[in-house]
Amino acid sequence: MSRIAYLGPRGSFSEAALRSLPAAASAEMLAEISVPAALNAARTGVVDAALVPIENSVEGSVPLTLDELSNGVPLVIVDEAVVAVQFALVAPRGTKLAGVRRIATHPHAQAQVRGWLDVNLPKAIVIPALSTSAAAAELVDGGCNYDAAVAQVTTAEIYGLEVLADQIADNPDATTRFVLVQLPGSVPASTGADKTTLSLFIHQDQPGALLSILTEFAVRGINLTRIESRPTRKQLGDYYFSVDIEGHVSDSRVAEALMGRHRVCLDVRYLGSYPRHDGNVAVLRAGVTDAEYAQAQVWLTKLKGN
Amino acid sequence: MSRIAYLGPRGSFSEAALRSLPAAASAEMLAEISVPAALNAARTGVVDAALVPIENSVEGSVPLTLDELSNGVPLVIVDEAVVAVQFALVAPRGTKLAGVRRIATHPHAQAQVRGWLDVNLPKAIVIPALSTSAAAAELVDGGCNYDAAVAQVTTAEIYGLEVLADQIADNPDATTRFVLVQLPGSVPASTGADKTTLSLFIHQDQPGALLSILTEFAVRGINLTRIESRPTRKQLGDYYFSVDIEGHVSDSRVAEALMGRHRVCLDVRYLGSYPRHDGNVAVLRAGVTDAEYAQAQVWLTKLKGN
Amino acid sequence: MSRIAYLGPRGSFSEAALRSLPAAASAEMLAEISVPAALNAARTGVVDAALVPIENSVEGSVPLTLDELSNGVPLVIVDEAVVAVQFALVAPRGTKLAGVRRIATHPHAQAQVRGWLDVNLPKAIVIPALSTSAAAAELVDGGCNYDAAVAQVTTAEIYGLEVLADQIADNPDATTRFVLVQLPGSVPASTGADKTTLSLFIHQDQPGALLSILTEFAVRGINLTRIESRPTRKQLGDYYFSVDIEGHVSDSRVAEALMGRHRVCLDVRYLGSYPRHDGNVAVLRAGVTDAEYAQAQVWLTKLKGN
Amino acid sequence: MSRIAYLGPRGSFSEAALRSLPAAASAEMLAEISVPAALNAARTGVVDAALVPIENSVEGSVPLTLDELSNGVPLVIVDEAVVAVQFALVAPRGTKLAGVRRIATHPHAQAQVRGWLDVNLPKAIVIPALSTSAAAAELVDGGCNYDAAVAQVTTAEIYGLEVLADQIADNPDATTRFVLVQLPGSVPASTGADKTTLSLFIHQDQPGALLSILTEFAVRGINLTRIESRPTRKQLGDYYFSVDIEGHVSDSRVAEALMGRHRVCLDVRYLGSYPRHDGNVAVLRAGVTDAEYAQAQVWLTKLKGN
Repeated sequence: MSRIAYLGPRGSFSEAALRSLPAAASAEMLAEISVPAALNAARTGVVDAALVPIENSVEGSVPLTLDELSNGVPLVIVDEAVVAVQFALVAPRGTKLAGVRRIATHPHAQAQVRGWLDVNLPKAIVIPALSTSAAAAELVDGGCNYDAAVAQVTTAEIYGLEVLADQIADNPDATTRFVLVQLPGSVPASTGADKTTLSLFIHQDQPGALLSILTEFAVRGINLTRIESRPTRKQLGDYYFSVDIEGHVSDSRVAEALMGRHRVCLDVRYLGSYPRHDGNVAVLRAGVTDAEYAQAQVWLTKLKGN
Repeated sequence: MSRIAYLGPRGSFSEAALRSLPAAASAEMLAEISVPAALNAARTGVVDAALVPIENSVEGSVPLTLDELSNGVPLVIVDEAVVAVQFALVAPRGTKLAGVRRIATHPHAQAQVRGWLDVNLPKAIVIPALSTSAAAAELVDGGCNYDAAVAQVTTAEIYGLEVLADQIADNPDATTRFVLVQLPGSVPASTGADKTTLSLFIHQDQPGALLSILTEFAVRGINLTRIESRPTRKQLGDYYFSVDIEGHVSDSRVAEALMGRHRVCLDVRYLGSYPRHDGNVAVLRAGVTDAEYAQAQVWLTKLKGN
Repeated sequence: MSRIAYLGPRGSFSEAALRSLPAAASAEMLAEISVPAALNAARTGVVDAALVPIENSVEGSVPLTLDELSNGVPLVIVDEAVVAVQFALVAPRGTKLAGVRRIATHPHAQAQVRGWLDVNLPKAIVIPALSTSAAAAELVDGGCNYDAAVAQVTTAEIYGLEVLADQIADNPDATTRFVLVQLPGSVPASTGADKTTLSLFIHQDQPGALLSILTEFAVRGINLTRIESRPTRKQLGDYYFSVDIEGHVSDSRVAEALMGRHRVCLDVRYLGSYPRHDGNVAVLRAGVTDAEYAQAQVWLTKLKGN
Repeated sequence: MSRIAYLGPRGSFSEAALRSLPAAASAEMLAEISVPAALNAARTGVVDAALVPIENSVEGSVPLTLDELSNGVPLVIVDEAVVAVQFALVAPRGTKLAGVRRIATHPHAQAQVRGWLDVNLPKAIVIPALSTSAAAAELVDGGCNYDAAVAQVTTAEIYGLEVLADQIADNPDATTRFVLVQLPGSVPASTGADKTTLSLFIHQDQPGALLSILTEFAVRGINLTRIESRPTRKQLGDYYFSVDIEGHVSDSRVAEALMGRHRVCLDVRYLGSYPRHDGNVAVLRAGVTDAEYAQAQVWLTKLKGN
């Protein structure tokens, strides 16, 4: 039986995301206290894989995950999951909504329920917590300095809490995307509806570097579905780019674009090719299919007369 | 006397940044508890301007600031400041380094001292705080559940604490950039070394939208010094782009590029033209100076025969 | 009554093209012996305008016309005409097709009837002539060293010749485009279906100059309908580009693109904006209409606060 | 001993160009009466190779050569030569310059001595000839209807004529480029200073097709040294592009670009890779050398784990 770490504690959105993946079916699931801890477990072989959040439809990318994956021992993404992010206000049994004075939650969650709090608990003070689940868990002991927590509704059942209000997110369609990572080995087979994730480190302060990156992908008919600039932790204005592109490293157009970037970039970190959670097949423009690549190779070989 | 809000509390990096600006010389300075609070004070006229962090050389952009400025009542940037970000471990007098078990700090600060903590206090637990200054301030009362705080060294003097270790950031050159914003009025005059900040909202899911944006700037010889994609809070993959470009809205090339983006984008939010903190004058390629724009206009008028 | 020169002699395709234009209705038409002679008549004021061929669907551009218009006293195009180019084999009355041994014609015409000659008169020798009309005209005197001419069928009537074979062009749809030029004055009003012709001289041997030119037009949503590289008569590899673009100099997008090219090119020769012969209205992409340009200007003025 | 055809007659610039090539050293040289005739001799195996003019620094490309090479039985360029193009006025012995009334020459030559004729023989009539050499050759018989010819000075010696004036070209630095073509077989080995010639046929009326072509080359760091648009002989506005690029088909960057064009274009006709006459080695930007291509391939293979 395989072992998979996730960003805990129990009841977290990460746990829900992990349960939605085939890999979880026969796996032992281990809650870790932070993204670095979960990744480290995968890097050291303590677990076979780790599931961490990478992007939220409201808050944007999770910089810690991007930065951790872009440095250190290489890990590659082998699957992804997207889960709806809903929040509830949970508290020890007997708590009255009107009596809530102090609320703990993760800052990302706070941002997503700001509107609801402004209307329903305008005077409540919000205290930052390491995670929404942790905020809920500490309510059980009673020794914490707050009355309620904004967390996933399932934490109420897990920790024996009461749901004071459910579905309180300002945007009811918010989602978070999670990725399952493991040490590099064989790349998951192409499904025809795949994504590839890359971290592209450019030379110094190159004006036009990003334009060059985008042009290289466009020339091969490859769409980007996500792009982030991230500091390299050296100085202001020194960036790397984290991108998701449509396609699989076994696609000729993707392979050619990756090699093109490898030749020009300071460094290209390949973070894996994996099936898209939505199963959307990329719409390709003429001239970039594998069959067309193969035909062009035949043509070239012939005209070179060898 | 003008009034300027900043991200407090007293002793924060924001306060240091504000003090470095000419505008602070004759101003009353007001500490606010959060970025939204500081910006709101400026939006409602409670203060004349507000200073908030926008970008850190280690942690990246400050999403909250970008998102707040890109939505709601318009504010424009009129000046910027960059300050070195250093950290100290501070504690009530008499605390021994070896005895520190629990440390409070802001998660961004934690990320920047991670290496030092791993070496010097590997067993210490780190507790997230709203800000580094707040973490230090709460040590004064004695009722908090931690022994020390990672904060700016000046907090020791302000709050009567002891410096257990100074300059503990893993990257000694880390800096944070702050912007001074106010309600739109007259644009600061061009100094010849200016930047312009924009939020560009694109139509739906346009493949090639970013390539188009970069090409428009490149065609007019305009360099980008920062680019971020940010979710519009609607759905995964729906972005806006936050960019800093070299030049001032009164430069012909910048004006032309802005109008070009206005015609094509769903929305362009102009966030101001202001002097660069480093005074670097943009190196322009041939054909994009104001003089050349003016000559081209004369030429065109003449050939149109009117 | 105005006077218009054309590339003669009588019966030429130029004459037919000129007769198709409104300007010819009330004009005195003067046949000139060459393109330079016709243009010179317009340049010196001997005539009010001149009509010359600029492009053929089979033979390509007419380099002499492009080069003459791109140098010397400026002339601008004010109208264009396209006529079908058909050829007949004409000869003095009594000539038998089987007896034709030597045929005179212009080399361009020869190229367009090559297939017919290979089949029908495979042994005939073709002698180059200054023009098809001239080849026909000389047959009248009888002293020429050839038996027949490939020329426009109307020359038979004009010069009292016999048509041995009509419609002998290999490509029955061949056309030639002619332009009516005059000294610069007022630009013809925009009709909504116009073209603009330019000669763009680039600095020395600039790799990427053409890419830059095309990008500038693409950024403003302007299509090219013709592009030619022509030597500047200095050295191999030193080119200028002759282009036709969709739109009128009074269109904002065209004006902006022209000024952009003026700033960057060594020289831009504006050769006129004039109605398209086919009346095709350009299909514009979003963001490049005059209304959108005007709205963008209003927006910019407002945000500059003046 | 090999046999090489050239555009005759004896004394032509083509002959001079052919003599400058190594291939001519041990070859039998055959004068042909036209470019198509010379190419046809190579296509049918009557000769081993053919030398024809392709580009003149004053008159531009030789459309007939480009069109002939771009259609019909494939031929490939294996070498090139550039010769200075100078002209003399030659006539039968005893002719006086002042007495010259009618002059024969090829229209290209006429264009290059126009200035000299305007000054020295303003009233002389110029009669077009098939070639400058032919114009000189016919003077020998005495039966022609002109007094002198503008031709290469060597024709005087060959045909026993007198040089009335030498070096009469308006541009003393004019040159013509010639190419040696043969049936496809083995490609000449890369010399490190090579060019590759292509004819690119695009789909219908594709706006942006040329921009796409140029971008593909630019992305691989490949410079163009010549580009021509040529009509496909179908209708106005239907073009193919004839281009010379720096590099050899055995260079990885060139091979990749060619395959890219093959996938997207209606047709790509490869017209050969051959040593540059000037021996100029292309200056490559970082990331496009064969070594870098090979390293990128190694990297890709490794990350695919196979």
